[in-house]
Formats: sequence, structure tokens, C-alpha cells
Amino acid sequence: MKFEQYVHGGDIYKNTVTLDFSANVNPFGTPEPVKAAIRDAADEADRYPDPYCTALREKLSALHGVKADAILCGSGAAELIFSFTAALCPKTALLPVPSFAEYETALRAVGVEPTFYPLLRENGFALTEDILDAINLSTNVLMLCSPNNPTGRSVEKKLLLSILDRCRKTGTWLLLDECFQDLCDADKAFSLIGALKDGDRVLILRAFTKTYGMAGVRLGYAVSKNRELLFKMSETVQPWNVSTVAQVAGLAALDCPDWAERARTLFRTEKAYLMRELNALGVSVLPGDANYLLLSGVPSLYEALLQRGILVRDCANYRGLEKGDVRIAVRMHAENEALIAAIAEVSDARNGN
Amino acid sequence: MKFEQYVHGGDIYKNTVTLDFSANVNPFGTPEPVKAAIRDAADEADRYPDPYCTALREKLSALHGVKADAILCGSGAAELIFSFTAALCPKTALLPVPSFAEYETALRAVGVEPTFYPLLRENGFALTEDILDAINLSTNVLMLCSPNNPTGRSVEKKLLLSILDRCRKTGTWLLLDECFQDLCDADKAFSLIGALKDGDRVLILRAFTKTYGMAGVRLGYAVSKNRELLFKMSETVQPWNVSTVAQVAGLAALDCPDWAERARTLFRTEKAYLMRELNALGVSVLPGDANYLLLSGVPSLYEALLQRGILVRDCANYRGLEKGDVRIAVRMHAENEALIAAIAEVSDARNGN
Repeated sequence: MKFEQYVHGGDIYKNTVTLDFSANVNPFGTPEPVKAAIRDAADEADRYPDPYCTALREKLSALHGVKADAILCGSGAAELIFSFTAALCPKTALLPVPSFAEYETALRAVGVEPTFYPLLRENGFALTEDILDAINLSTNVLMLCSPNNPTGRSVEKKLLLSILDRCRKTGTWLLLDECFQDLCDADKAFSLIGALKDGDRVLILRAFTKTYGMAGVRLGYAVSKNRELLFKMSETVQPWNVSTVAQVAGLAALDCPDWAERARTLFRTEKAYLMRELNALGVSVLPGDANYLLLSGVPSLYEALLQRGILVRDCANYRGLEKGDVRIAVRMHAENEALIAAIAEVSDARNGN
Repeated sequence: MKFEQYVHGGDIYKNTVTLDFSANVNPFGTPEPVKAAIRDAADEADRYPDPYCTALREKLSALHGVKADAILCGSGAAELIFSFTAALCPKTALLPVPSFAEYETALRAVGVEPTFYPLLRENGFALTEDILDAINLSTNVLMLCSPNNPTGRSVEKKLLLSILDRCRKTGTWLLLDECFQDLCDADKAFSLIGALKDGDRVLILRAFTKTYGMAGVRLGYAVSKNRELLFKMSETVQPWNVSTVAQVAGLAALDCPDWAERARTLFRTEKAYLMRELNALGVSVLPGDANYLLLSGVPSLYEALLQRGILVRDCANYRGLEKGDVRIAVRMHAENEALIAAIAEVSDARNGN
């Protein structure tokens, strides 16, 4: 729970919102079998959750072709970021920015002032080979997100393998957030899970949140072949952090393998639509590999859309971004049309037409 | 999530259990309106939870007569123990034992080796005034549980106020776990919430888990008049730690004010019944103020009952307890009868009858 001024998107609780483009979740929402599992869980609400998440880990183990003890479940992937830093208590950390704000928050929670590695606007915020030179023997931790949030840019396979290699040499712990991997364009999707060797100082994050529309349920997991790391992480949290509701919802979600594919098919068409229309309106858009797009140079868009009941993510508080950078989720066609119509209206108004 | 040998009760996932006396939850289970709220939440599973738990905190604020900013919600009270130690990073801690194991785990998670204050078996494990002498200027943190788990003993009002006074003088942070307060005998129930002054270094824990049969949902909260502490604690966890499901379930639970009273009425009769029957069977029972009882001198009871499908809490791994100490929850009369019948059978068998 947060206490002070809150920085993330998705604050539908404070605003009157009819269309939410601020949260990057699957626009098809929650699969019906997952909803059914949540409903059924009401009848066993008084039972403590399985602290080992046994059934869920077995299913994830089969899915990823790793042993069950290479998997640690959490109350959303976000919780696992905090247990990663709490378990390692690093002295230093390298953080490419802009990226998801919780990496920095979780580092600061254990007293680490991260070193920021700026991703350049002129490169479309892509991670490039230069990062390799920034990883050295005194880099305790590196945190990457691929596709990155909020830019939507993936780290290329070749570069990711070079980074893994470099981290092995320098003893650097790599946290790789793959939470948007399932919703990423097929030609850009690459998971590091298959490349892991026993003992590798790598933690890969995955979530049910985005793929299966389960943001309100809280379920994520980490894959690592460093058993000691997972054990230490488990010691930093309560035994019952993954609710019964989340565990049964997750099991049901894994029985819906088409849910992500269906969304990816939609995104191919809808991203093309949105980019074409936005460009026609003179709005600059970064081509993103995931289920969201980063617009720039639209400093009054957030407020103007909010007045029309449409919530987007103002990215001004992302380190490395500025006022006028705005992230939009890719949603169903009718919703995307409504967004474009509203932006056109705002842009007309701005041009005094 | 846990990784290795697990120490708590309630492991209904590994065993074939028809009657669970190991978990201390309300035997009436989950109120129907709470179940309905969980079912309804299925339809908004894809929405991120309110990171401020606004509605829930307002309702709790009215219930306890404190401002909403004196309340911090968590994913079960257990999570708040870990954010308490993570926020304070104490150097020393005083821990009466036996008590709930997660206090020690949460201290060790931030590198603290606690000083144990033994509660004596010959005193019925009651906390006595001697504790006051053990709290000094170098005591950073004191963690108390009232009624205590697994002994069921409450800290008396007069002593609790003296401890508060002493902690104010020594600058000691007091974590007071009142999670079983709602299910405690009325003449023994005393909450410190009303005695708190602005700035007091006190955190009071409360949970929905036991009172409203919501162990599988994960919802607890802390009350404190030290705003800085709550802010720091909120910084050690993700913003979305309290799921949407938990928030709506909690709101529904607070509309069921009779749920605890109904259970307390049951416990008055059933505790008397259990104590009478156990004493008749020659089993030593500690008179407890809460919804569970601690038996002693029954070293083979856990295994013997498990063979009959009845799970109780073997307390041998509690610091300060030993093999033969067993905790049983107080449940519905028919269940308690079944437990007594099984214990009688076991005890007959042991005596060779």
C-alpha cells in the first residue's frame, strides 16, 4: 500500500474514467475459466494458501521446461523485485532508464543509490552494445526490462546473450523482467529462460497480470537456476504471500494457452492502425514491440483526454522522460478508434480549428 | 512463498485431512457477503488494485476512531511484520518466547539476532512485570502478541500500559500483534489502539484472516500514530500488495459486525467443554483467552491424530516449547466432539486398554 503522492498509471480510483488506456493489460480481459476459478475460491477463502504453491509451480515447470525448484511465485512480479533486492542487499546497481519505476524504488528500499544508464531518445530508447562497457566488476546488480516499459523496446537476442555472458564474467546479478514477453510481437520475442545454466546469477520475472488480465489478483513468478537466490528471496517475505485466490486463478489461466496469441494477433492490426492515425495527426509515436505505445511531444494530451473520461499514462515522472511523453495501451478496435477521435478533437482544438 | 522445510500449522496440502484443528480461524468460516464480494471481484480481476486502499482505510478509520492516515493495509498481517523490520532495520530486538515464528524470521531477514525473553511454563507462559526490566535504552524493538500465539495468554491491561510507558522512555519500537483480539474472551480483550498518542513508536497489527475466515485472501492492517513509520513501511513493498479481491472482501467483512461476537459466544461454551473433557482424559491444557488451546505432555498425539485424518499443530518447533506441546483450534461442537473421541481412542490405545 502506498501513502504519499503516487506515481504509476492506472489510477482509475481517483478519476472519472470511461476508457482506461493507462494500464498495459490484455484488452480481452480475464479469461472466463479464470473468473470461474476466482468465484469458486470464495468457498475456500478461510483456508490458508499453500505456502509452496506446489500445483502452480509444477505446471509452470512443465511450461518452461525447468525444474519446479527453479520457480518462485510472488504476489505479482512487483513483489519479487522487492524480494530480489532484499535478498541480495547489493551495494551498487546499474539501471537503464527510462524503465519501470519499481526497480529504483526496490533498490532505494535497501539503501542503494543506483547508477543510471541513459537510453537515448535519438536511438528510440533502444538498448545498445554500449551497455556492455558499463557492466564491470563493481556492478552488483543490473535490472533490465524486455520489452521495456514504457518504451516497448525489446533487447535483441544477440545483445541479451552478450549481456548474460558479460554478467557471468563480472559476477553481476541480472534481473530480467519479461512480464510483457507474452504480449510481444512474435519476431521480437526472446526469453532468456532457455539460456540459463545452473548457478547463473539471473532472475527472470514473469507475470499473469498483463497476459491474463489478472492485475487485481496479484500473481507473478520468477525463474532462476540459482537456487540459493530463490531461497534467500523466500526468506524475505511471509510464507503465505500468494493467496489461494491467485493460485487457483493462475492454474486456470495456464489452461488458456490461446489467450496471449489472440491478443498478439489483435495488436498486429491495432498497432498499425494507431501508428498510422497518430502519424496522420502529427503525433510522434515510438514503434514498440509490446502492447503499448509511447507518444512524445504531446504536453497537454493527458489532461485534455482526462476531461473526456480517457485515462492515459503521463510519463513525465519517468526518469529519462519528460512532460509530453505519454504511454497508451493498445486496446480493442472500437476503443482505439474512440481514443484517436478524442486525440483528433484535442489536436483540432489546439490548432484553433 | 516458502522453499525449504516449512514450520507452520495448517499444512492441509501435504496431508489427507478431514478435520483441521491446526489453523486458528473462525469456525463459522467466511461470511456469505464476503464470499459474494469475492465472486463479484472476478469481473474486475483485470483492474489494478487501489494502491491506497482508500475505501477500506476510511471504513477502518471509523471503526477504530483513528484518522485514515493512521492505517496501513497489507497482504495479511504477516506481510506487515516483514515491512516493519525492513522499514526500521533495527540492531537489536527483544522477543518473548514462545510466540508466533514470523517475528523472528522477519528480524533475521534484516540481519537481527533477537534476544529471547523466556515465558515460563510454570507461570502458564504469562507475560509478567519482569519484562519491564528487560526493556532498556538499547532495546530497539519489542514484539508482543496478545492474546499470544500459541499459548492463548493475553497481556493484562495494566502491564500493557506499563510496557507502553517503558517503551516511550527507552525509545523502543513496539510491535503489538492483536490479530486474535476479536476472537478473545471479552473480559480479557484489551486493545492498545485507544491509548496511542501522536508519534508513539508503536505498531498494532490486526487481521481479517482469523475473524472473518479470510486466510486464503490475505488481508491485514496496521494501526499506528507514527506516520513516518507507516510511510517507511509502505516504501518497502510494491504499491499493489493488497489485491482488489482482498479490498472488496475486507469492505464486505466490516459490514458483518456480529461475526466475531457469534464466534466468541461459541468459544465460551466450547472451551469449557474441551477443557473439561481433556482434563478428564488426563491431558494437561493451558487456559487460553483466544480461539485455541495449548495442550502439553502428549508427544505422540500429533501423529496418532493425523492417522485418523485430524490435523493439529505440533508445537515442537516453537522456540520455548517442546515435543508434546500441541495447539488445537476451538471449532464447532460436533468437530470438537470428534476430536475428543479421537483423543480418547488414542489415549486408550496408549494405555493398552
